[in-house]
Amino acid sequence: MVDPDNQTSHLVAPVLEQLERGSGPFSSLIQQLTQIVGKNSLLYDADELLVYECDGYIVDKSAPDIVVFPTSTEQISSIVKICNQFNVPFLARGAGTSLSGGCLPIGGGVMIVLTRMKQILEINLRDRYAIVEPGMVNLHLTNALKGTGYHYAPDPSSQGSCTIGGNIATNSGGPHTLKYGVTTNHVLGLEAVLPDGSVINLGGPTAETPGYDLHGVYVGNEGTFGICTKAIVRLTRDPEAHRTMLAVFQTISDATRAISEIIAAGIIPSALEMMDQGIIQAIEEAFHFGFPLDAGAVLLIEVDGLEIALDEEARRIVEICNAHNVREIQRADTPEERLLIWKSRKQAFGAIGRLSPSYCTQDGVVPRTRLPEILEFIEATSQKYGMRIVNVFHAGDGNVHPILLFDERDQDQIQQVMEASEEILSKCLELGGSVTGEHGIGVEKINFMSRIFNETDLSQMEKVRNIFNPRQICSRDKVLPPHGEKSQAAVSLSHPGRRAPH
Amino acid sequence: MVDPDNQTSHLVAPVLEQLERGSGPFSSLIQQLTQIVGKNSLLYDADELLVYECDGYIVDKSAPDIVVFPTSTEQISSIVKICNQFNVPFLARGAGTSLSGGCLPIGGGVMIVLTRMKQILEINLRDRYAIVEPGMVNLHLTNALKGTGYHYAPDPSSQGSCTIGGNIATNSGGPHTLKYGVTTNHVLGLEAVLPDGSVINLGGPTAETPGYDLHGVYVGNEGTFGICTKAIVRLTRDPEAHRTMLAVFQTISDATRAISEIIAAGIIPSALEMMDQGIIQAIEEAFHFGFPLDAGAVLLIEVDGLEIALDEEARRIVEICNAHNVREIQRADTPEERLLIWKSRKQAFGAIGRLSPSYCTQDGVVPRTRLPEILEFIEATSQKYGMRIVNVFHAGDGNVHPILLFDERDQDQIQQVMEASEEILSKCLELGGSVTGEHGIGVEKINFMSRIFNETDLSQMEKVRNIFNPRQICSRDKVLPPHGEKSQAAVSLSHPGRRAPH
Repeated sequence: MVDPDNQTSHLVAPVLEQLERGSGPFSSLIQQLTQIVGKNSLLYDADELLVYECDGYIVDKSAPDIVVFPTSTEQISSIVKICNQFNVPFLARGAGTSLSGGCLPIGGGVMIVLTRMKQILEINLRDRYAIVEPGMVNLHLTNALKGTGYHYAPDPSSQGSCTIGGNIATNSGGPHTLKYGVTTNHVLGLEAVLPDGSVINLGGPTAETPGYDLHGVYVGNEGTFGICTKAIVRLTRDPEAHRTMLAVFQTISDATRAISEIIAAGIIPSALEMMDQGIIQAIEEAFHFGFPLDAGAVLLIEVDGLEIALDEEARRIVEICNAHNVREIQRADTPEERLLIWKSRKQAFGAIGRLSPSYCTQDGVVPRTRLPEILEFIEATSQKYGMRIVNVFHAGDGNVHPILLFDERDQDQIQQVMEASEEILSKCLELGGSVTGEHGIGVEKINFMSRIFNETDLSQMEKVRNIFNPRQICSRDKVLPPHGEKSQAAVSLSHPGRRAPH
Repeated sequence: MVDPDNQTSHLVAPVLEQLERGSGPFSSLIQQLTQIVGKNSLLYDADELLVYECDGYIVDKSAPDIVVFPTSTEQISSIVKICNQFNVPFLARGAGTSLSGGCLPIGGGVMIVLTRMKQILEINLRDRYAIVEPGMVNLHLTNALKGTGYHYAPDPSSQGSCTIGGNIATNSGGPHTLKYGVTTNHVLGLEAVLPDGSVINLGGPTAETPGYDLHGVYVGNEGTFGICTKAIVRLTRDPEAHRTMLAVFQTISDATRAISEIIAAGIIPSALEMMDQGIIQAIEEAFHFGFPLDAGAVLLIEVDGLEIALDEEARRIVEICNAHNVREIQRADTPEERLLIWKSRKQAFGAIGRLSPSYCTQDGVVPRTRLPEILEFIEATSQKYGMRIVNVFHAGDGNVHPILLFDERDQDQIQQVMEASEEILSKCLELGGSVTGEHGIGVEKINFMSRIFNETDLSQMEKVRNIFNPRQICSRDKVLPPHGEKSQAAVSLSHPGRRAPH
């Protein structure tokens, strides 16, 4: 949903145009960046840049002009200072798993890829924190903690590839958000390179720090407040035990009512995920877990805690499911069976690849009690557009993830995906919800911001953005809609690596 | 620890001086404010202002020139606009229970007292939130929820008098913070009048809202970002059951080791409070609960959750206490016994009134594992100054509250309290902790800020403060140390209600 007329703001355009005129300034930029990172840590060849022209949100594309792979805070600070000097936009990228175009380099510029900064700098079990670099893959941290009795709680579905830095940028959630909270609840402090190249430290290893909660506002900035270079994250004690169940329901509305009642009973499951008929069929086709193909919905329910409490909690959950016409409940009796149940959920996205060449995972929130309405609306939208939409989502949080199946080679289908998405998200708002639970605004949902917030609200956000990022050359044109006069048309650096944004 | 030379910033001094010259502008200000709130909702007589010259931090005093009692957001917005027009400083006050001078009207001006805005505007149990006015007393919200199965989790020791607005300003904690988190974890959204009089809405009833987390940075602003006029707070399900215990230890170090081991065992008590020998003796003298006077420390330990799990958790806690030479454990077997145990903790501050004419409750944080060291240091400081210091605090969080006993009529003792406090807080920093866990910086700890944060950090905080409060006339000279040239000496409005700050 990027407006191509707005892809380059008037703030940086003039200098980009200057760079375009001759190869001198561009070569000079390359040369200076090479001095910092070395020639093996820099790309500017068209073919090599292709990989970086989009992230998990494949609807919009825009390649960077240069990609660098720094290995330290100091290098990032120097790179950022040079970008400022050349007035060239820049942004950070982790694994590129953003589903809202958060890593899209609008108007080109320098992309700072953090995947070589993936070290654990400290693990402190007594005071329960770890200090990690931003390019660390989420799951690798939890793997490194195996056997210590601790783990890092936020677990996005993409945790096998997404990075801690990206999680911080988007304030990621995951299946265990319901009980353990989102990323901001697990970040105690951080170091960041601000958009002017200075280095700042926010928060620290003790839970409460004096002064304003800047690390709180930093988490979820979607890359627009600079580049996080170190994170102090909270470690969570592993629960003593789990009870994991799959409950098969005839209808979505039975499943939803069961969810409401489980929560109302004062049970906080560590995960409460719903898969609808479409996704059940896709998973079944791909992996043959043995799900009944005619079921309306399957709930994955997990409780964790002390061994002694869990049987009682599980018993109550079964009782509630029974009261809502559950067809069948499978219980994991061994750790292997638990892993198998989770595999069905975590591989859901993989299964979709068998259904369709492309898919767009949407992200909306409704009050938990409005789940049946939004799911009905999604079904109606699917029929209206003749487009298959399947659902797998964090039901306990009311966070829906309709997955729209399409073929990205067909421009009409891309248009339809955008329209259908807009309708679904508008319905979420109408039901008292929100247009993003965890994927962020990015470029995708920027036009929703002025529908959600009034001018005072947006202006206050803009003021906060501007003190971090006054020139708006760091992760440009994300989160907040541009305003004032229409900015100039997109321009590009005149070198072979540059692809026009589309 | 206010530097009297800094009590009026150069920003507002000239206009205050103008007001001082004649009674015209001052009368005009009174007249305009009266038009908004009515003459029964405005004070400016010297005797009546006396009550508002300090809050729970009695070391510094400074009376406002005018006190107003608005009843709506619109009134507050108008009052703030008038203050801007007259260039007169203003600040909000709830119950005035701040322990760090958060409600001190530095340089006088208009105090906006929120105690008449104490309504519950909505209770929504299905979606688990309440909307309340800022002057609502914390405990009144929980009382209003009795019988619904829900409560408001943050429970400062002053919850019988402190207000939700004040809790939001200081991001208050309480005994149940260990399990349930601080105020920011329970505020979903808010409405505020910004320091220029405009009205802003941040966050909302659904858990995650798009855009920057401004309501996150707003919580804990200590009144410097404007005046919160409505709060959407999360309601927490009442636990099914509790197990409450008092464990009597011979030494503080045994008690501390027991705490560390309870947490390490993966048990998260809903409260884990420590009282030292001094406070035990004071409580015993006042209320005769039957505590042994020679005990080194008493732990109040509470676990909550599902009935079936609690006996096992309690058994483990007893086992751990036994392994650390506990002398005796009392268990509450009935709700009445539980209330009695809590009474001993909650009335601790009342008991201190019997020991000393005045006391200063300090607020420091250390990593939990460093508790024995800080408590030894507090004891040494007590001996050094010949000043009695007793301790009652949130041990599970490492949040100490040494209570320094003195007589405020003796200027030398005030000086000693300030010096001893500074030494204790410096030690907290040295041990890797912080100078405030929950009471805030206020005016009391402002000089610590430049010891904790470097220039970049402070400058970033200042930039954030300045976008909310660019003229710094809202709750002046709080949180961040003034910098640049020394500001002018304090001036005052020339009317009988004005007392010179001291």
